[in-house]
Amino acid sequence: MTERISPRSGVAVVLPRGALLTVIDPEGGQVSDMLAVCAEDPAEILSNGRTFDYEETLRLTLGARLWSNRSRVMLTIVEDTAPHHDFLLTPCSFDTFRHFYPDKPLHRGCFGNLAEALAPYGVEPDRIPAAFNIFMNVTISPDGKLAVLPPQTKPGDLIRFRAEMDLVVGLTACSAYASNGGTFKPIDFMVEQPF
Amino acid sequence: MTERISPRSGVAVVLPRGALLTVIDPEGGQVSDMLAVCAEDPAEILSNGRTFDYEETLRLTLGARLWSNRSRVMLTIVEDTAPHHDFLLTPCSFDTFRHFYPDKPLHRGCFGNLAEALAPYGVEPDRIPAAFNIFMNVTISPDGKLAVLPPQTKPGDLIRFRAEMDLVVGLTACSAYASNGGTFKPIDFMVEQPF
Repeated sequence: MTERISPRSGVAVVLPRGALLTVIDPEGGQVSDMLAVCAEDPAEILSNGRTFDYEETLRLTLGARLWSNRSRVMLTIVEDTAPHHDFLLTPCSFDTFRHFYPDKPLHRGCFGNLAEALAPYGVEPDRIPAAFNIFMNVTISPDGKLAVLPPQTKPGDLIRFRAEMDLVVGLTACSAYASNGGTFKPIDFMVEQPF
Repeated sequence: MTERISPRSGVAVVLPRGALLTVIDPEGGQVSDMLAVCAEDPAEILSNGRTFDYEETLRLTLGARLWSNRSRVMLTIVEDTAPHHDFLLTPCSFDTFRHFYPDKPLHRGCFGNLAEALAPYGVEPDRIPAAFNIFMNVTISPDGKLAVLPPQTKPGDLIRFRAEMDLVVGLTACSAYASNGGTFKPIDFMVEQPF
């Protein structure tokens, strides 16, 4: 029942309302960028700002809800064994590779992988916002400085979401050096349909 | 040369590349939500996530650049006398009024004001992301909790931006109770054209 996302790639998953989506870090230390759109209208899309508005925290874990740009709940976190996730940063892309890794080979990154996976569902690249970056370890200093550190996840750490509307979800195994400590690993996921 | 935005309203300002936009809190304690789109193609829009990516801080002040969803610099902060701004939260709206102020009269808020001001320039409401919330005082606790406190701006505090591309900018005088301590005040702004 578990499916695997190869290193530096992405998939789209159709998730009916009530379905459970479990995202697993099989080896530890890897990130998965997740983006959700309403299956009926992909102009309704995950919003970090609306989520921060209503959840009133940056630390989104068990019980937290992820909200859309239309102020509707898309997903609820129903289980979470991981020490951290991030909802501040946007998916890595050709542009972020040029900026952060000018001496490394270019890669389309999670942005390109999400754009390709979600294109058949009507999601335009320009509409891809900050993703919910599962297992990503972003620290905030008292002066506001952000740092991307290797994830502290252990093999088998997982987060489980319940879909609160019919969704199409894009999921990646992250492609950037900083977010996974320079080791590109797979991500596993599992969908349980509603009864 | 200074123009005034009435309490709880908004305007759109056309800003050629090189122009300076100064936003002033004339009475102190007020917030102005700012959204920028590329004048040539409004699908290119301000992005909090891309800005956090490249500026590597939540504390955006003198010298910081505000980036678009296409990884291009839209605005540079060239002067800033204010103690804080916010780029985490989305503009107040009918939905946020229902959620946070169920006993108060409904208001379309900064979201509705930005949507109306920017509609003639081709900006769809669904594309309105987190605005750059000038003078907004959002605190982050060590556990990630967010709190919206009254701005600590003094009368005359200002922020000045240089446009790094041809832009249309939406600007409001904020409508929400929490962000300005329940006092709805005007916002002043000034545009200086490039030579």
